[in-house]
Amino acid sequence: MNKIITIGREFGSGGREFGKRLAEYLGIAYYDKEIITEISKKTQLAEEYIQAIEDKPISTFPITIGNSFYAIFNPISENVEVSVYAEQNNILVDMAKRSSCVIIGRCADYILEEFNPFRIFIYSDMKTKISRCIERVPEGENLSEKQLKNQIISIDKNRAKYYQFITGNKWGDRLNYDLCVNTSSLSIKYAAEYIGKMIESKM
Amino acid sequence: MNKIITIGREFGSGGREFGKRLAEYLGIAYYDKEIITEISKKTQLAEEYIQAIEDKPISTFPITIGNSFYAIFNPISENVEVSVYAEQNNILVDMAKRSSCVIIGRCADYILEEFNPFRIFIYSDMKTKISRCIERVPEGENLSEKQLKNQIISIDKNRAKYYQFITGNKWGDRLNYDLCVNTSSLSIKYAAEYIGKMIESKM
Repeated sequence: MNKIITIGREFGSGGREFGKRLAEYLGIAYYDKEIITEISKKTQLAEEYIQAIEDKPISTFPITIGNSFYAIFNPISENVEVSVYAEQNNILVDMAKRSSCVIIGRCADYILEEFNPFRIFIYSDMKTKISRCIERVPEGENLSEKQLKNQIISIDKNRAKYYQFITGNKWGDRLNYDLCVNTSSLSIKYAAEYIGKMIESKM
Repeated sequence: MNKIITIGREFGSGGREFGKRLAEYLGIAYYDKEIITEISKKTQLAEEYIQAIEDKPISTFPITIGNSFYAIFNPISENVEVSVYAEQNNILVDMAKRSSCVIIGRCADYILEEFNPFRIFIYSDMKTKISRCIERVPEGENLSEKQLKNQIISIDKNRAKYYQFITGNKWGDRLNYDLCVNTSSLSIKYAAEYIGKMIESKM
């Protein structure tokens, strides 16, 4: 059976780097932005538009995640958000069926529950997240520490809302994960390697 | 510098077994009940009495944890609770100074902050905790699943209260730990070994 590893993460905590290193160590596929590209191909919507739908606070219409989506997906649907979530759902299931992989975000821990994923949550303290963001800020973009802090809080608030909306569970609640890793005190490189070894021993 | 590893744990989640295995793997000291024995020696109070003070819900008199305790400790103090906390504080600091070690519970993550401990929290879902308790229940003691569940909830409620009282922080909040490990899905044996390897790589 394919081994599916899902990574929930606070913005700026290094979840993506951790996931990439873990996938490299285990020699398995890594999916993050690739999911947006796939949705774009399937829905004919621009990647930027899909990203915006995933980033913005979710509207609160009633929704059921599951196979029912397959039936209602329609590229000219009035409700584009529902189509995007539905297509994402399908794509995640396809990826999990295809091969072992690491998937970043997108409530994959919940959507792929039937695949018994190993669910990791990556977090760190605010100081570490701000430092990490400063290191990675695109050239020419100057944000103060206060602005960065507000941005981090706002992005994580949206992630929590999105997770709550799709799963009905609390984002970052330890009970929804097998392992929660604080990257303030751990080297991401070593953590990915040793957690990789631990997962391998279960494979 | 000595490596100090502190283990917070939900009742029935296997935190003690994890800590013992981790200490064995790393070849360092392991302290749990030994702390009660030490307090008993120093205060001349019975071990059972000390255990009862640690287990019961904390009274809410104002208290400051820190060196100030050294001055006020007095075996015939009217306030035995304060003496026990103070002595525990001293003993934890002595243990951390003596050698690398694993310490179970007792807010050691907070009390030994200056030693930069590696702080682990062990938890699991209720089903796993109940199964574990059933396996380990003393002969002749028969508790229903419902009674066990109530006992687990009650013990953890007291642990949370005690932690909040001593540290001012929320017990089990991921931000107070470097790693949170769910023993519902992970083998304690393997987790202890691989997390041991990870800690070693930082030593």
